[in-house]
Amino acid sequence: MAKIADKYFQVDPWEIIECGFNKDYSTVAESIYSLGNEYMGVRGYFEEGYGGNTLLGSYFNGIYEQEKQVGSSYKGVTDCTQFMVNSVDWLFTRISIDGEQLDINACDIRDFTRRLDMRSGLLTRSFVWQTKQKKEIKLTFERFLSMEHSMIGVQKITMEALNFDGEIELCMGEDFGTVHKMYKTAYWECLSSRATEHEIEMLGRTKNTKQLVYSSGRFQVDAESEEDVSLGEQDVTKKFILKLAKNQPKEAVRIAVNVSGKGKVAEQTDSFLETGRLEKEKSRSFSYESLLKENQAWWQRVWNHSDIVIDGDEENQQGIRFCIFQMFQTYHGAKVGDNIGAKGLTGEAYNGNAFWDTETYCLPFFLFNDIKAAKNLLLFRSMTLPEAKERAKALDCKGAFYPIATISGKECCNLWQHASLQLQASTAVAYGIWLYEKITRDREFLESDGVFMLVEICRMLATRGDWSADKSRYGYYGVMGPDEFQMMVNNNCYTNYMGQFTLNYTEEVLEKLQKENAALYQRVVEEMHFTYAEREEWKKIAKAMYIPKDEEKKLYEQHEGFFDLPHVEVDDIPTEEFPLYSHWTYDRIYRNDMIKQPDVLMLMLLFNHEFTEEELKANYEYYEPKCIHESSLSPSVHSILASQLKKHDEAYQFFGFATRMDLDNYNRNSGEGIHTTSIAAAWMNIVYGFGGMRSDAEVLEFHPSIPGRWQGYSFRIGYEDNVIVVTVKKNTVEFYTMEDKEIPVKIYGEDYVLSQAPLTITIPQEWRG
Amino acid sequence: MAKIADKYFQVDPWEIIECGFNKDYSTVAESIYSLGNEYMGVRGYFEEGYGGNTLLGSYFNGIYEQEKQVGSSYKGVTDCTQFMVNSVDWLFTRISIDGEQLDINACDIRDFTRRLDMRSGLLTRSFVWQTKQKKEIKLTFERFLSMEHSMIGVQKITMEALNFDGEIELCMGEDFGTVHKMYKTAYWECLSSRATEHEIEMLGRTKNTKQLVYSSGRFQVDAESEEDVSLGEQDVTKKFILKLAKNQPKEAVRIAVNVSGKGKVAEQTDSFLETGRLEKEKSRSFSYESLLKENQAWWQRVWNHSDIVIDGDEENQQGIRFCIFQMFQTYHGAKVGDNIGAKGLTGEAYNGNAFWDTETYCLPFFLFNDIKAAKNLLLFRSMTLPEAKERAKALDCKGAFYPIATISGKECCNLWQHASLQLQASTAVAYGIWLYEKITRDREFLESDGVFMLVEICRMLATRGDWSADKSRYGYYGVMGPDEFQMMVNNNCYTNYMGQFTLNYTEEVLEKLQKENAALYQRVVEEMHFTYAEREEWKKIAKAMYIPKDEEKKLYEQHEGFFDLPHVEVDDIPTEEFPLYSHWTYDRIYRNDMIKQPDVLMLMLLFNHEFTEEELKANYEYYEPKCIHESSLSPSVHSILASQLKKHDEAYQFFGFATRMDLDNYNRNSGEGIHTTSIAAAWMNIVYGFGGMRSDAEVLEFHPSIPGRWQGYSFRIGYEDNVIVVTVKKNTVEFYTMEDKEIPVKIYGEDYVLSQAPLTITIPQEWRG
Repeated sequence: MAKIADKYFQVDPWEIIECGFNKDYSTVAESIYSLGNEYMGVRGYFEEGYGGNTLLGSYFNGIYEQEKQVGSSYKGVTDCTQFMVNSVDWLFTRISIDGEQLDINACDIRDFTRRLDMRSGLLTRSFVWQTKQKKEIKLTFERFLSMEHSMIGVQKITMEALNFDGEIELCMGEDFGTVHKMYKTAYWECLSSRATEHEIEMLGRTKNTKQLVYSSGRFQVDAESEEDVSLGEQDVTKKFILKLAKNQPKEAVRIAVNVSGKGKVAEQTDSFLETGRLEKEKSRSFSYESLLKENQAWWQRVWNHSDIVIDGDEENQQGIRFCIFQMFQTYHGAKVGDNIGAKGLTGEAYNGNAFWDTETYCLPFFLFNDIKAAKNLLLFRSMTLPEAKERAKALDCKGAFYPIATISGKECCNLWQHASLQLQASTAVAYGIWLYEKITRDREFLESDGVFMLVEICRMLATRGDWSADKSRYGYYGVMGPDEFQMMVNNNCYTNYMGQFTLNYTEEVLEKLQKENAALYQRVVEEMHFTYAEREEWKKIAKAMYIPKDEEKKLYEQHEGFFDLPHVEVDDIPTEEFPLYSHWTYDRIYRNDMIKQPDVLMLMLLFNHEFTEEELKANYEYYEPKCIHESSLSPSVHSILASQLKKHDEAYQFFGFATRMDLDNYNRNSGEGIHTTSIAAAWMNIVYGFGGMRSDAEVLEFHPSIPGRWQGYSFRIGYEDNVIVVTVKKNTVEFYTMEDKEIPVKIYGEDYVLSQAPLTITIPQEWRG
Repeated sequence: MAKIADKYFQVDPWEIIECGFNKDYSTVAESIYSLGNEYMGVRGYFEEGYGGNTLLGSYFNGIYEQEKQVGSSYKGVTDCTQFMVNSVDWLFTRISIDGEQLDINACDIRDFTRRLDMRSGLLTRSFVWQTKQKKEIKLTFERFLSMEHSMIGVQKITMEALNFDGEIELCMGEDFGTVHKMYKTAYWECLSSRATEHEIEMLGRTKNTKQLVYSSGRFQVDAESEEDVSLGEQDVTKKFILKLAKNQPKEAVRIAVNVSGKGKVAEQTDSFLETGRLEKEKSRSFSYESLLKENQAWWQRVWNHSDIVIDGDEENQQGIRFCIFQMFQTYHGAKVGDNIGAKGLTGEAYNGNAFWDTETYCLPFFLFNDIKAAKNLLLFRSMTLPEAKERAKALDCKGAFYPIATISGKECCNLWQHASLQLQASTAVAYGIWLYEKITRDREFLESDGVFMLVEICRMLATRGDWSADKSRYGYYGVMGPDEFQMMVNNNCYTNYMGQFTLNYTEEVLEKLQKENAALYQRVVEEMHFTYAEREEWKKIAKAMYIPKDEEKKLYEQHEGFFDLPHVEVDDIPTEEFPLYSHWTYDRIYRNDMIKQPDVLMLMLLFNHEFTEEELKANYEYYEPKCIHESSLSPSVHSILASQLKKHDEAYQFFGFATRMDLDNYNRNSGEGIHTTSIAAAWMNIVYGFGGMRSDAEVLEFHPSIPGRWQGYSFRIGYEDNVIVVTVKKNTVEFYTMEDKEIPVKIYGEDYVLSQAPLTITIPQEWRG
């Protein structure tokens, strides 16, 4: 694991700061300074235009385009990819003095600073521009997305002439001519556009999927003149001439209202346009100041219940706050139907698709930070159950097969070796339902949605698997487990185990339902044509499920035959051969005992209580050295388990870049967007790792430890309409709740009841890092 | 194996006859009536134009185009496919009377017959056309490709007015505007064209690969007038007006000369044009009659040494002659660099690519029918050794990795699961070298070419494989054996066995070389930077090669874990689910113990003497019921082994459609081209199957049997500059040689020496079908 930090940004507890501009980091900074409010996202690109390397990205959650693959394909292999499409540049700006247009890539600038304030979501950038005629002007660009009114984005530009009196030309508009970089295609057609006094608006439609975005801007500019000067068919632009007097700054403010729509809503463009205009009208009651104030309050609430404080490690302090900030920017359950793309709303990579990361990594984050968001994530899967059923059919299975990558519910991954072989998206949904029920004790969701999903997933599990030649064992053949370096394997331990879990849990749910809510059970039976024979078969399958294990060595075998695979000494692979996908022949990756990310160990984290400490130790020590962590999610899982095994140094090592993955561009690809879902893993790394929290047993459990380099740390978790505050110091750990409600927990194996009165416990020696 | 004949053509021992035209069979008939002479091939399309379903295909051996796949791909995965490209329509003809143009699809015709004479390669088609004005004209179209002068193709049209005196308009030209159907693209640009008195010529160049075809036509038409009337930029056409008198036939003859060129030759278009013209000049000495006569003599020689006679089964008699005829049409070793596409020169399917079929199925055919052709096939692999070395490098291996599908030597298969996992193309080359040496005792080829290929293949074998976890066994991981229904398996028995064989044989060759030709050995060492350590390592690997086997049951395991795979009862699969690739989800095919084609059994055929009868029986009875024969090559292998096991009824059943695969369109896809390489399997089915010949031991061996429905059969095999004629009757089998040279053989396990004096042996009871 030779990941090296590429340090660039300034360290600060609440801000991400860039001092001076460095072209080599232009796209990385664009990603880091991405803003999002779940509804939309906008990369930190220079709105005034930039001639250098840039990914001018503006996205709306759930608004996608699609491309069909050319040529025939095999049955069940997706030939249509859907991706979050680059959308309107609603910040479009151009600035000129004496005909010279500002472009940081080409102009003389100095005193460049950029800062993102995580207490408000305000992004500020300022610099001094010296024109060719030696005129100097200080420019400050501010922007933020409203967290309360998710259709609203705000921009402010402050211009101060430093050594002259004179005119400045400011063009502000919006542009649907943006190009989706990966497909080198502009996907938007402009259906209507209008410019009125101080206002512009456009309606754009995606070419293939016919989805709509209404975008409007309302300007407050202290200008001498205002003129409509659209530059093409895809934009609406106004030109403002401002007269500047030396040292007397002038401002230009835009309140943008962006509305996205698809499906039925998008079929009626006229009424959609009306909706957009209504939203624009509503926005008149807001000002730059009022919106910013609301944002500050919104973020204050987040930090109140979700902040993590690290004492004695400024870098990780900044890192973890950046993680939490980005997580909430990407998703906070504002709307059912939204999901979390692998890069959030910050770039095109991974097509804006959501993976099993959602249930496996992100769901726990929201379960302990924002229950509604957690529920809405699961509702996405309920809403897309029809697509999962279609997919199962395409794969010759019954029931529901959840896509490995999706934006609309349809499978978007055109690599059959992933899309057809990975069952973990489906079992992760079942796990999510289970965990949600366990943490929230909310039977309602289970009965309204969960049970229907569970039954369909079980149907898939009972048809995708098979009996061994001698019919004694059931298992899944031709699969790819979480470790994507082993393909077309049989009886992958994780897959079989998750299958067994899902079947057993569903049986439990059905049994309880039958007893406690016979009417609903009857509805399930009728609506789903569900038979007693099916239930019996599932029980039979679950019972016969094969979990490969070397009993003597306590080792679970990742899949049948794994123990006999040729050995690769991971440490002997030259650094320059990473990432392996780029340097090794495709099939070579799959021919040995090297693994990409935790597989058996993932299981041991998800069902931590099902395994003994001895088993965990044996398997950790066997699998960890074989793992190259080519997934950004991998090190955190290892860190969490290392903590549990009291391998504190190792735990800290694996934690290493978790919180600063993107700030320090560890994978050298943060320019494509930030690793949103690995942010969730970074959070887990602290709460489940150092905090030693476990949520898969009857009550919450904690085994806090503290890395040697830290003076202390604290985290907050929402639980049962309460917030538990955990503060770990060198020798003690303190617990208290914010609300007056008792919570039974286990700490270091002992029972306690938490309340508003602080409980202080001495950290046992073995848990001190 | 539910394959059903779709009988259409008339049965005749020497001709393929179509009586009456049926539109539903238009493309099948085009394939069946394909002509070829190794240099070029032309489908049996209607040269006068046809408005119905047609694949107007004209091909040149080795002339290809290429298409790059869009999008990125993984390392070692081919993103450029090369394919035999549809080329000039050098038979282009249009016929009109009173402005009405002949099109069999639209016009009134009667008395349609078409016949292909396998004694000359002459294709004749005739019918009576009744025009809208009720004029009746009998038209006879003849064509053939010269076997002696491979650049020459001949066309003759005979026109006889039946009920009128009057004019007929005949356009004859050539057209480079042909479209490659699969890519819906016209790949030719016309560099020059010229029409002179009675002559036309064109020079065409492929757009991407810049390969050339010169095409010329010399006409003898008894016409009133001749006029140049080219129809577009891609064609040169002449219009002839003929005056017909009732019942006085007139003829139009074209001698076409087509020259193809690529590589260096194609870079100089001017000098290439000169070469073409020179060839055209040379052709002046030939007439329709002289060329046809030569063809008759050429085919007479073929039938003299290669004919198979079946007494009492007219359909198979016609079928096997059609096979032999098509085999020689496709390839007879005229030129080093030519190879045998899966569809020969008869269609676009499989891209005109050559597979391991060449060495595995076709080579034995040529070894016993045309030694020079056999050698030239191997020389193709020697010539393309550089490309195989490049390919090995792309796959992170040393040495040479022969492509699974190729036309130029480069890998053309863009499915990594085949191109990267199938080692059998490489080991088939080694097997071919071994078999060639064994049959010919030609050490010269081995020393000039063979040893260099062998060393490079061994290098690949020693780097593609791996040691098991405990280092005790060597094997190949992540492979696909001959059975393409098992993917990414470890220690495939066939692959490991072939690897071991190749390493051992190479060691044998090197040892002998070192002893007997030290100078050459030294050259090998120096030229190839070959080390003693390498040889030692190969010995070590060969010794440790793992051949999975259940010793007790005498069963070789197709690959590690095969015996535990879920069982599919092949007979329970509904007929409508075939072919499985179209009806089953892609990955589902790979998740059970069903096999597509022989794998372990293939090995038992290739190295027949290495396995006991008991082993063969056990493995045949285990694997045969699991095989669905979705490869056209599969049934013949099973038939041959069934014969050996004295399962005579089963042998005949599997033989069933071998000889008439295309004539009776068993796979319902003969319209795309004929199954050229399965023709070789049909030949083997008789010679190795019923004839019981084995060629992998010291002397040739025979165990002739006779299917119960046959009165007798005979075959001829070329061997040691001699021809052995084997005639099997109900109770006896007779052997004699055509040349005065003795040949020691084994018959039913006894030693004999064959000579010109016929040897008659009574067939033991157990060998009577």
